Amino acid sequence: MPRRLIVLTEGYSNPINAKTAVSVIRYRPGEVVAVLDSGSAGKTAQQILNIGGDIPVVASIDQAPPADTLLVGIAPQGGKLPGVMRKAVLAALERGMTVESGLHEFLGEDPEFAAAATKSGSKIIDVRRNRERDVATRTGIDERCLRIHTVGNDCCVGKMVVSIEIADALKAKGHDAVFVATGQTGIMIAGSGCPVDCVVSDFINGAVEKLVLANQQHEIMVIEGQGSLAHPAYSAVTLGLLHGCVPDGLIVCYEVGRKHVNGLEHIELKSLEEMIRANEAMANLMHPCRVIGIAMNSRLCTPEQAEAEREQVRSRLGLPVCDVYRHGAGELADAALRLQREIGKGPRK
Amino acid sequence: MPRRLIVLTEGYSNPINAKTAVSVIRYRPGEVVAVLDSGSAGKTAQQILNIGGDIPVVASIDQAPPADTLLVGIAPQGGKLPGVMRKAVLAALERGMTVESGLHEFLGEDPEFAAAATKSGSKIIDVRRNRERDVATRTGIDERCLRIHTVGNDCCVGKMVVSIEIADALKAKGHDAVFVATGQTGIMIAGSGCPVDCVVSDFINGAVEKLVLANQQHEIMVIEGQGSLAHPAYSAVTLGLLHGCVPDGLIVCYEVGRKHVNGLEHIELKSLEEMIRANEAMANLMHPCRVIGIAMNSRLCTPEQAEAEREQVRSRLGLPVCDVYRHGAGELADAALRLQREIGKGPRK
Repeated sequence: MPRRLIVLTEGYSNPINAKTAVSVIRYRPGEVVAVLDSGSAGKTAQQILNIGGDIPVVASIDQAPPADTLLVGIAPQGGKLPGVMRKAVLAALERGMTVESGLHEFLGEDPEFAAAATKSGSKIIDVRRNRERDVATRTGIDERCLRIHTVGNDCCVGKMVVSIEIADALKAKGHDAVFVATGQTGIMIAGSGCPVDCVVSDFINGAVEKLVLANQQHEIMVIEGQGSLAHPAYSAVTLGLLHGCVPDGLIVCYEVGRKHVNGLEHIELKSLEEMIRANEAMANLMHPCRVIGIAMNSRLCTPEQAEAEREQVRSRLGLPVCDVYRHGAGELADAALRLQREIGKGPRK
Repeated sequence: MPRRLIVLTEGYSNPINAKTAVSVIRYRPGEVVAVLDSGSAGKTAQQILNIGGDIPVVASIDQAPPADTLLVGIAPQGGKLPGVMRKAVLAALERGMTVESGLHEFLGEDPEFAAAATKSGSKIIDVRRNRERDVATRTGIDERCLRIHTVGNDCCVGKMVVSIEIADALKAKGHDAVFVATGQTGIMIAGSGCPVDCVVSDFINGAVEKLVLANQQHEIMVIEGQGSLAHPAYSAVTLGLLHGCVPDGLIVCYEVGRKHVNGLEHIELKSLEEMIRANEAMANLMHPCRVIGIAMNSRLCTPEQAEAEREQVRSRLGLPVCDVYRHGAGELADAALRLQREIGKGPRK
């Protein structure tokens, strides 16, 4: 039975801060009945988030259509629940609704929320909570499965979306592909995965290796990336993921026009060339691997700017380049299939 | 008041498995009154661990000189307490002794140990327990402080020892140097630090950055390294540390003759050249940095083999090379001071 979700974005209703909301609405459209943000009540999801059509924005749970789950629709740096969201979370728990959160700060450990949940019998799902305690051993990996991994020059450039779209494009071409989620939003969409940024750091490579072992019955695995090897705060997560999933091929994701690290405006982003070099160097410490395509996020570009950027990067790097929203992910899926043939992997007999 | 420690190595009394015991005995010699391993009772620490002189090995706490603390002397992969050690831990707690552990599996969360501690009023110190929740921001770093960081081609090659010895050599030359601990054993020795491998992975870079901010009043900081950028299981920890401490100079540590990753005998180690390249490439994504010396661990070599290796590596890489036990850390300390002059850092006025 599909869930009936109210997505909470109180005070954070823009496409960047409410990244989780946007992605859940995009990939689970039938499940979302309302967006909760009292400051934008009366508008539609489309008006405030650029997605979701007529899904209403409401000021409280009372004003929303019947729902069984309140989903926290943000994923801020540091991972704490903003104070303005407490009221709605508490209201949901008091009326017996499930509350699902991808924050680092576990709602289930908040005494007030825990008490409310106990009293009403409602459930708190902290998607990032995990007890990963296995170290990577590099054994049992089935080399028939093609592993594609998305990386990038920053966080919030679209790695999850690109991964989902490539997996979907491969499926549309008749291949047995699977999207492997590694972040809270991806897990909310896919229904499984590993919240790698919340794993104790000694065990991140091992947790990712387990994801590979659990999904390698598929012909092609597209593993969601996180952060960037050059991100001052999150590079450890990125490398644990890159080494744990031992990819054959990488897709480098970036946002056109972004010059500085998201949230750290005093730090310049590295060029695509530098990111390709760094990712290939680090991946090849574990397993043969190369960059097979570029995913540009051109959300702030005019169509003309997007096409000019695409041509320029394509000729500069000699790689396929797509914005998966504008152009679809077909070229990147084809790049994965070329790599599959080239390194002698292929559909199972 | 110095502690009176019994170091527990039950069933694991060799210099590799009992790495924590060996280092605590080496750098806190006055505090250790006995080693507890029933299988070697009657011997001396020197006989089973190659260090500690006449410190007695005993079969039980009853047979040891009076002590206030039982220190778990091992740090196994995966970080669990071996079953054979439970009896001694419980006995210590029952008689009101403090139990100090650097394991990933927190003794304080074990119901039997927790109950025994509550009953007797004894204390359990889980050195790795932390609630790090700060992300790195790359602000507030004082560039007058020289930051030296030890890296390597594997775990268990001697990074902690090399870091302590370089800091001590710098102090002996009259400089204000500090050893910054990043692992459980280093923290037990230094009395402070951050157990980076047990930090949630989103926050490791930030936790290390805080260590830098807390120690940069010193002229020179020597930050203990962990794992290796090429380690299948622990590379995420290594990169979070490398990026969080934004080093000016690196010392690459390795063990002479080791061919495969410690505990993963199916994985070949990378060459020193590859490790220098990988570490310089990744460090320079954040901050200008280069390798300034090599620390060889020649514990399995004859003196002749050690000298031949030293000469060969020195001429191959054009860098100072020492085994800090055989040759002292003077050459590596001098390399740090040359770098300090070269990049225009120096003693505070």
